[in-house]
Amino acid sequence: MFAARRSLTPFNRLLSTNLYRNKHTLVLVRHGESTWNLENKFTGWVDVPLSPKGHEEVIQAGQLIKAEGIVPNIAFTSKLKRAIRTLWHVLEQTDLMWIPQTQAWELNERHYGGLQGLDKQETVDKYGKDQVLVWRRSYDVPPPTVDRGSEHHPSNESKYDDITVADDFTESLSTTLDRVLPFYESSIVPQLKSGKTVLVAAHGNSLRALVKHLDGISEDSIAELNIPTGTPLVYELDEDLKPIVQEGAITPLKGRYLGDQDAIRERIEGVKNQTK
Amino acid sequence: MFAARRSLTPFNRLLSTNLYRNKHTLVLVRHGESTWNLENKFTGWVDVPLSPKGHEEVIQAGQLIKAEGIVPNIAFTSKLKRAIRTLWHVLEQTDLMWIPQTQAWELNERHYGGLQGLDKQETVDKYGKDQVLVWRRSYDVPPPTVDRGSEHHPSNESKYDDITVADDFTESLSTTLDRVLPFYESSIVPQLKSGKTVLVAAHGNSLRALVKHLDGISEDSIAELNIPTGTPLVYELDEDLKPIVQEGAITPLKGRYLGDQDAIRERIEGVKNQTK
Repeated sequence: MFAARRSLTPFNRLLSTNLYRNKHTLVLVRHGESTWNLENKFTGWVDVPLSPKGHEEVIQAGQLIKAEGIVPNIAFTSKLKRAIRTLWHVLEQTDLMWIPQTQAWELNERHYGGLQGLDKQETVDKYGKDQVLVWRRSYDVPPPTVDRGSEHHPSNESKYDDITVADDFTESLSTTLDRVLPFYESSIVPQLKSGKTVLVAAHGNSLRALVKHLDGISEDSIAELNIPTGTPLVYELDEDLKPIVQEGAITPLKGRYLGDQDAIRERIEGVKNQTK
Repeated sequence: MFAARRSLTPFNRLLSTNLYRNKHTLVLVRHGESTWNLENKFTGWVDVPLSPKGHEEVIQAGQLIKAEGIVPNIAFTSKLKRAIRTLWHVLEQTDLMWIPQTQAWELNERHYGGLQGLDKQETVDKYGKDQVLVWRRSYDVPPPTVDRGSEHHPSNESKYDDITVADDFTESLSTTLDRVLPFYESSIVPQLKSGKTVLVAAHGNSLRALVKHLDGISEDSIAELNIPTGTPLVYELDEDLKPIVQEGAITPLKGRYLGDQDAIRERIEGVKNQTK
């Protein structure tokens, strides 16, 4: 009674892909507030859940995507529950719980090495504001490493059984890009090229990596760029997967945020002040 | 800094698979109560959400699996949100949101053809109790078909773009088996054989298909077998993937249900009375 459908009808193809308009859509969503955002700790790969406010934020993100009429065909997220739960909320609100979903460690937040689990203010008190600002906002200076004996080393978590990381592990924004961008090229680009609308639910720094690549932002500027939580960022890409500047895009981005634009501008500024 | 790990260490292999005890674990969960269970309508492939009680049921299912110490490595569900949401609750409760998840139409509920969307009692009034009982409980008598013009025909939903079904569509329990069992063999069996603990969140009739196969239940008996909602059913399989009779298994099953055994026996009887 069933058979794999060999070719889509032209009509279905129009409905299910962007091919007819010769452009590609990529939607990025940073996870909502986590319980550790509230506690002001360095999180990294620590697998903390969304806070109640975080749940609300990303439910709204899903409603914004639905209201915009954007229909993702495939989704990618990290191995961390705050991003996965964000994806689930968006898929629930857009009635797309059935689309294929991949959880990839390559989309994880930057690993904060030996700072993971530490209170941000205490870390400032211990190391000084300037040093902490370097670790948080430099492009290629990593925080102190974490070793295999620590609960924060990825080799001690079964969800990372399929990767090998250095015995002394940490990540800068630069080394984060070194794993985000190859994943984008190998796993996300083919989907975009095939005409799929792609949804990515991830983290501040893994999304910075994508935005740096898409918008051609310099190493000096990218660490200062703040992507607000739970705010869909929509890129339309041309045939070469270069972003087309969208109406309402906030410089230096070519994509546009969905939602209250004044509130978004305020939030972009707000994230900068956490350790000031 | 990263490399694909070429081989697991023996220690990790012990932790992450069942190979060391030469048996395989398969956990089946029927989705919790849906909003249409409450309305007493024939549901089939109609994509209705869990009811509030349904959410509670499957949260408990997740807690039971966690309490039992069962750690699934991979999960399968249908394309219907009541089963996907069931899976998500179980994964959230077991802290396994990151494991690979596949949503397959082959695990969907039986399609109820022309009965989908109809009130069960009105259907009894119209066609008679005996005819409805035949449609509900016979092995190979399908309900009336639904044609391509109906909103209930799968060709009118984008989630089924990759399959082709008959213009006049309906399913009996027998034809449901014809798509569940090949999927089990092609997609689930290889995972079990590789040592993975597999979680399946699905529906009354797609799970009947699996249970019929695993327990060798006859065509005459399987339609009378009730699998209670939100109640994990755990099979331990031998090297040939034949089920090993579990302590506490309720005849004719060789797997065992997790939870309050007296309450489970009552629920197994209860499902039979819906159109009596």
